[in-house]
Amino acid sequence: MTTQKIAILGPGLLGASIALAARRAGSGPVALWARRAAVVGELRERAIAGLVSNDLAEVVAGAGVIVLCVPIGAMPELARAIEPLIAPDALVTDVGSVKEPVVRDLAQVFRSRGRFVGSHPMAGSERTGHQAASAGLFDGRVCILTPEPDTPAQTVADARAFWEGLGAGVRLLGPAEHDQVVALVSHLPHLLAATLVNTVDEKNPAAFAFHGPGFFDTTRVAAGSPEMWAEILFSNRRAVREGAEAMIEKLREITTLLDRPQPLNEFLAHARTLRERLKAP
Amino acid sequence: MTTQKIAILGPGLLGASIALAARRAGSGPVALWARRAAVVGELRERAIAGLVSNDLAEVVAGAGVIVLCVPIGAMPELARAIEPLIAPDALVTDVGSVKEPVVRDLAQVFRSRGRFVGSHPMAGSERTGHQAASAGLFDGRVCILTPEPDTPAQTVADARAFWEGLGAGVRLLGPAEHDQVVALVSHLPHLLAATLVNTVDEKNPAAFAFHGPGFFDTTRVAAGSPEMWAEILFSNRRAVREGAEAMIEKLREITTLLDRPQPLNEFLAHARTLRERLKAP
Repeated sequence: MTTQKIAILGPGLLGASIALAARRAGSGPVALWARRAAVVGELRERAIAGLVSNDLAEVVAGAGVIVLCVPIGAMPELARAIEPLIAPDALVTDVGSVKEPVVRDLAQVFRSRGRFVGSHPMAGSERTGHQAASAGLFDGRVCILTPEPDTPAQTVADARAFWEGLGAGVRLLGPAEHDQVVALVSHLPHLLAATLVNTVDEKNPAAFAFHGPGFFDTTRVAAGSPEMWAEILFSNRRAVREGAEAMIEKLREITTLLDRPQPLNEFLAHARTLRERLKAP
Repeated sequence: MTTQKIAILGPGLLGASIALAARRAGSGPVALWARRAAVVGELRERAIAGLVSNDLAEVVAGAGVIVLCVPIGAMPELARAIEPLIAPDALVTDVGSVKEPVVRDLAQVFRSRGRFVGSHPMAGSERTGHQAASAGLFDGRVCILTPEPDTPAQTVADARAFWEGLGAGVRLLGPAEHDQVVALVSHLPHLLAATLVNTVDEKNPAAFAFHGPGFFDTTRVAAGSPEMWAEILFSNRRAVREGAEAMIEKLREITTLLDRPQPLNEFLAHARTLRERLKAP
């Protein structure tokens, strides 16, 4: 773990968990920025970081690592605001769940000051806010780095060391490839969970009272923040739409097999084989 | 909990868990039937019940409660085999996940001997077999009883007391209503989980390596037994097909909203409100 100052911009689940995980790893000083004075007060009370402030200049001054942890739509403006304030060789990264638009904008802002590479720690939760934060949030989770072809190897290596220090396992993907992958394993599942809940509500809301653990787990992510997820799905709409259309097609196919136990069995057996290969998070 | 003998027919997750839960509740003697000698040996080694045998007559003799815990397709034959062997006033029930066809067949078999009412304890798991059994499997879970209009109230009351003694909360539904409800909250989620896994496999199997806890939970049930689930989906195909068609329609609707953050947000917010009302199992 770096002994340089770490600046975290944004006090949500991810920002606050990075602060806690960095302290656990024995990092250098941690500074945390929140826009609202009330939140700054709460974070100071919890002593989540050595410095908590709504003064951007104070938080980023002299930091070796800067992590943007605000909603995707707020990233470009925040990036432009800090660009003149940061050390010229500061490592800058973000935690946005969609990478192509974010990386395009942020790489542009930091093209001559700061060393930028995108990150996506796959460690969300349906719970939000610093109240849900924990030092172990990244333990054993995948963090995807999304370098562009011209991102220097040293920038990638430094970002990798940072996330590994927080407990995550690092993988690399290009920004566009990242967005296709997470459309399938994160955004589409979210859309399905919400759609399943709304379908049950429309068909027979009394059925909710009879749910078991299967329904509870299958729909867990639908309890996530609607604002955050609407922004994510919108930002990655092309890949999400492609995934949803493939899902609709496959659902049609399996619906025609419902009166044929043998191919139905094969369909389910194929899914089970694949599901059993997944590593528990 | 009854002090009468309990006969459990079928040594899977549910049968073995009923045996363990009955013992925990201080029940009368528990007898467990398994077809295969090897399984009888395993169950005796684990001392899961006072009597373990592949002799049906021995297991059901004098039992006050008899629970059929075999796959749906095997229920009618097993029912016919035990009917001449049981006490005339024995309470007979089953744990099938689909009720209309099972109740129709079993009520017919036990119309003049035994007191039958269908049960569906909503306590499955993607794990199967007596190895996964536990005395606490039914704690706090819903068990749906599915009496017909002519089922005597005393039969329902006795079945209710039995399941409550094992830790479950009992609810009543007619067999057809039950099948519609579980199509929505159990069978459709299963179909969706398997379809999601197979869709990812078809679109980009490399994406599996990047899954987080959301995908893991959303697809958990897809690890269940393909044979058992093909039989369940087939047996309840009409209601499952209706649910799947409603899901496809809703998925189409939300896919058209992907470039409109506001209605997308409202759709997700509606789902979250409903999901947050669910009681954790």
